[in-house]
Amino acid sequence: MANETSPFAECTRFLNGHGPRDPALALQTALDELKPGETADIYGTGALINDFEAEVAALLGKEAALFMPSGTMAQQIALRIWCEHASCLRVAFHATSHLQLHEEGAVGTLHGVDAQLLGDATRLFNLGDLQTLSLPLAAILWELPQREIGGQVPTFSELEEQVQWARAKGIRAHLDGARLWEVTPNFERSHAQVCAPFDSVYVSFYKGLGGIAGAVLAGDTDFIEAARPWLRRHGGNLISMYPFVLSARVGLRKHLDRLALGFAKSNCPWARPASRSAMPKPLRFFLSCSRM
Amino acid sequence: MANETSPFAECTRFLNGHGPRDPALALQTALDELKPGETADIYGTGALINDFEAEVAALLGKEAALFMPSGTMAQQIALRIWCEHASCLRVAFHATSHLQLHEEGAVGTLHGVDAQLLGDATRLFNLGDLQTLSLPLAAILWELPQREIGGQVPTFSELEEQVQWARAKGIRAHLDGARLWEVTPNFERSHAQVCAPFDSVYVSFYKGLGGIAGAVLAGDTDFIEAARPWLRRHGGNLISMYPFVLSARVGLRKHLDRLALGFAKSNCPWARPASRSAMPKPLRFFLSCSRM
Repeated sequence: MANETSPFAECTRFLNGHGPRDPALALQTALDELKPGETADIYGTGALINDFEAEVAALLGKEAALFMPSGTMAQQIALRIWCEHASCLRVAFHATSHLQLHEEGAVGTLHGVDAQLLGDATRLFNLGDLQTLSLPLAAILWELPQREIGGQVPTFSELEEQVQWARAKGIRAHLDGARLWEVTPNFERSHAQVCAPFDSVYVSFYKGLGGIAGAVLAGDTDFIEAARPWLRRHGGNLISMYPFVLSARVGLRKHLDRLALGFAKSNCPWARPASRSAMPKPLRFFLSCSRM
Repeated sequence: MANETSPFAECTRFLNGHGPRDPALALQTALDELKPGETADIYGTGALINDFEAEVAALLGKEAALFMPSGTMAQQIALRIWCEHASCLRVAFHATSHLQLHEEGAVGTLHGVDAQLLGDATRLFNLGDLQTLSLPLAAILWELPQREIGGQVPTFSELEEQVQWARAKGIRAHLDGARLWEVTPNFERSHAQVCAPFDSVYVSFYKGLGGIAGAVLAGDTDFIEAARPWLRRHGGNLISMYPFVLSARVGLRKHLDRLALGFAKSNCPWARPASRSAMPKPLRFFLSCSRM
């Protein structure tokens, strides 16, 4: 959002683990996380990266997953695959989607994909907005929570109804779950349950989880196999990403430990029943300015 | 090349610093390299990454440089910029170029750029090959040394003559300098002198220098400014790349220290006078299988 940078710089408290990033701490954490005998990933191969991909796939209830340097890459790849699948270079997403605001029009420029914007920039889209879309469409992108409008979320039943509408039209459902970790307690569902309606899911490891960088794209096995050449085309099949993977592994484990300790049932405000927002209004500003 | 993987697996000696990659050593090296008070790079900003870019730009004799996760990204971006500049989506490179063999046709699929292959796959291209090209062309890519044919290089005067031919036709000259560090002693010239004929240069930090991953694209200021949105489009404008930058910094310093110690004037076989190959024939196999 226009004034995002300035309030961030003024913040002194950060509620989702972001804020100033300490490279010494992060590198030491990655080093401590390395198990004896673990070897570097090489161009996406090796137990260090592949075991983590399998762990994240299982957590999200999907068959397979692929680790990538960034979500920008992951989401363009997901939408391109669904477009190829449908032989239709048309998708839809919210007017404030990351693809619309922060990727320099890449889904169009690099992939030739035409995007319809859903709803308006001040509120979540709803079933009525979906029903105004020009069809055919290859895919629709849902973002949970919707970052740029203060982290709002639909109720889970609204979400299910929307995805069901898309499926009935043969449209694939993709989840921008960059901040999925912050929203699942709100739905009182597991990560896999929240991801279940979606054909493909992207999650991030530095937003909330404190990783250095990195993302995962998850879906069925055929989808992930289709994603591999696109990852290479984007220049994201790096010789090694173990600093990212190791820090993501730590972040995810801490997050899951928190959940296991009853985080979701505690008095933490994020653990409220599902509603229109992933967090109470007084917290929205802090989350919004903590690089949400 | 077809049988590259198998001989690599059988190798026990590696002559360019590659071979098994030790993540504990690399992370500790990055940690040790971090200066007190150095903070993480954030989306390509911050002294840690920007100072290194400036250092590499100066080393290569270019006005500006941009750190990127991979060379795949860097070279597509360079060629796309020159294509936009020339309003012509046509380039040329060697039949064994990385773009032809290892990028899943990305320069065509993502950028719509049509590539003519130069010469044949068994030898370097020459001025005669250039003269057979269909014009207009936006850019030609030179690779020094030409990896897939055993690290061959033209003489520097041949190279200058070729680039001069291209310039006279209004064609931009791009250098794939992934292994530039290994070839400059061969030319008995500085890195900047070798890069001088070229409008844009890509160098890598894990090939030979032992970095974790990462690349730099260098050129004049306008070129690098044009590269920034393309880096974001590719998904390469990562929130943080300091593990890559720190390890690249160490690798580059060690390399420059070696040169300063008279490496180029020693009995090291790489320091031979310029000839058709960057290394003597008996060494080619080892270099070829050490992930050259």
